[in-house]
Amino acid sequence: MEAPRNAQQRKTDTLARLTSDVDAWIATADADGNAYLLPLSFFWDGADVIISTPRSSVTGRNLSRGGRVRVGVGQLRDVTVIDGTPEPVEDEQTMDAYAAKHSWDPRRESGDYAWFRIIPDRVQAWREVNELAGRTLMRDGKWLA
Amino acid sequence: MEAPRNAQQRKTDTLARLTSDVDAWIATADADGNAYLLPLSFFWDGADVIISTPRSSVTGRNLSRGGRVRVGVGQLRDVTVIDGTPEPVEDEQTMDAYAAKHSWDPRRESGDYAWFRIIPDRVQAWREVNELAGRTLMRDGKWLA
Repeated sequence: MEAPRNAQQRKTDTLARLTSDVDAWIATADADGNAYLLPLSFFWDGADVIISTPRSSVTGRNLSRGGRVRVGVGQLRDVTVIDGTPEPVEDEQTMDAYAAKHSWDPRRESGDYAWFRIIPDRVQAWREVNELAGRTLMRDGKWLA
Repeated sequence: MEAPRNAQQRKTDTLARLTSDVDAWIATADADGNAYLLPLSFFWDGADVIISTPRSSVTGRNLSRGGRVRVGVGQLRDVTVIDGTPEPVEDEQTMDAYAAKHSWDPRRESGDYAWFRIIPDRVQAWREVNELAGRTLMRDGKWLA
């Protein structure tokens, strides 16, 4: 086990991963409290996690409902977890940036895709148990480091 | 992108991963439909996913509630997703097997740990989009291959 990173290093590593990683685990729930989980391509616009998924899919319906969402990024022993709330994406600019990152544009698909912006209010990052302390990097939407 | 695997190969790969992998993403939800997600050490006893977590943690409380649970195993481009329902684990034999796998016994921790058995009714496995077809390996608790 490596020595625990300090807060600044964790933030740097986390932002690098959010920028370069392709897929994230998106956990949502329905109104009855049944959990759903799927890896989806995501785009980090510097503030929010942007994803696109068919409007009628389970994830699409759960996100449209607006309950709390949790996003897992990275490896199981190099984890970033983001808590946030979803909002629909309406602006073409964000859709363009998403398409540029993934070389794939949901607007060109035959299915009815929706975009969602997950607005983080808490970000945590840790590798192993010795990094559980100090894992909170953002609280109430504010970066701590 | 590699050629898609057949059902038998996917099942073989999935069972190998469930046996050898250490951590899994556990997605749960509260009664109000807010999602939660955490990587946890797990033990596959050949039929169910066994996890242990503090009884009073968010995951512990969500699992005690009994709503649907979703488990993500593997890499983001080599995914196994398990849908199931949680039940408390009472037998010492399962706790022993969990402790043996992880060289860590929650019974020896000072916190009040609970064990849960997630009983799968659906198992899906895929690597990339060309494996989305045929990704369902178990349906209604029955392996299809």
